[in-house]
Amino acid sequence: MGESGDRLDEREDHVWRTFRRMRDQLALALNQHLQQDAGISEADFQVLAALTDAPDHAMRARTLRTELQWEKSRLAHQIRRMEQRGLVARHECVEDGRAAMVRLTDAGLARGRAAAQAHAALVRELFFHPLAPAQVDALHEAAAVVLARLQQTCPAEAP
Amino acid sequence: MGESGDRLDEREDHVWRTFRRMRDQLALALNQHLQQDAGISEADFQVLAALTDAPDHAMRARTLRTELQWEKSRLAHQIRRMEQRGLVARHECVEDGRAAMVRLTDAGLARGRAAAQAHAALVRELFFHPLAPAQVDALHEAAAVVLARLQQTCPAEAP
Repeated sequence: MGESGDRLDEREDHVWRTFRRMRDQLALALNQHLQQDAGISEADFQVLAALTDAPDHAMRARTLRTELQWEKSRLAHQIRRMEQRGLVARHECVEDGRAAMVRLTDAGLARGRAAAQAHAALVRELFFHPLAPAQVDALHEAAAVVLARLQQTCPAEAP
Repeated sequence: MGESGDRLDEREDHVWRTFRRMRDQLALALNQHLQQDAGISEADFQVLAALTDAPDHAMRARTLRTELQWEKSRLAHQIRRMEQRGLVARHECVEDGRAAMVRLTDAGLARGRAAAQAHAALVRELFFHPLAPAQVDALHEAAAVVLARLQQTCPAEAP
């Protein structure tokens, strides 16, 4: 695979390490601040934010998984832990063929809202603020190209 | 923080979601293939790769943490699980003030090497192949800018 062999060349290796380190260190910073500000992880925050935006603050588990692009076992584990902490509740939707639903509790809604402003400010400070507008555009374009490639290779499962 | 308030504007929100989705979906694809090919996660692979490159296949735990940019508890948990699976061994280095060392086992070295080629081929296929050279450069530049900002805000701990 690849005309120049299977190993990354020096330039690719350097770019890949920079990207991966940026990704990991940004996730670490966002996580630490969410923990300090609201006692939640970035994964908790992503679930809370998705449900906050959903009608009636509820989603089918399968839709939530498509939205977050997580593995099934990861989402199940995450939801179980958030349920134990009173942030979400699970139930079956009888009208929808007993589909598994996840709903935000009042506590989860309050926690997500409290975290949202500080989180957005930090994303702006660490990610958008240092980049020139043309760099934001270029990063967005590259991310969209890679995402399209990923979706071609690993299409979302049929419902 | 930020002259236009604490919420991301529509454009920022769109860019941020695209970036985050690319990041998550790429990690998911790499993880799934590493699991299939070698029975390891991307986190396992990062540890194996760092130790494979180190002299004598061993590193101080603290150096490994700086290299990977992980939280202390995450690395400790990761190393404990890899030790249980026979991929790494932990010991104290008496010459180095009893510093905690992590060393690759023969099994860990073999596993890391077996995974490396398939992993590099997949990184090339999913990340480098779809991007034009100018897009790779732009992505690298933007990642380096964000990384510099992160390192300014959250400098690595003193040794």
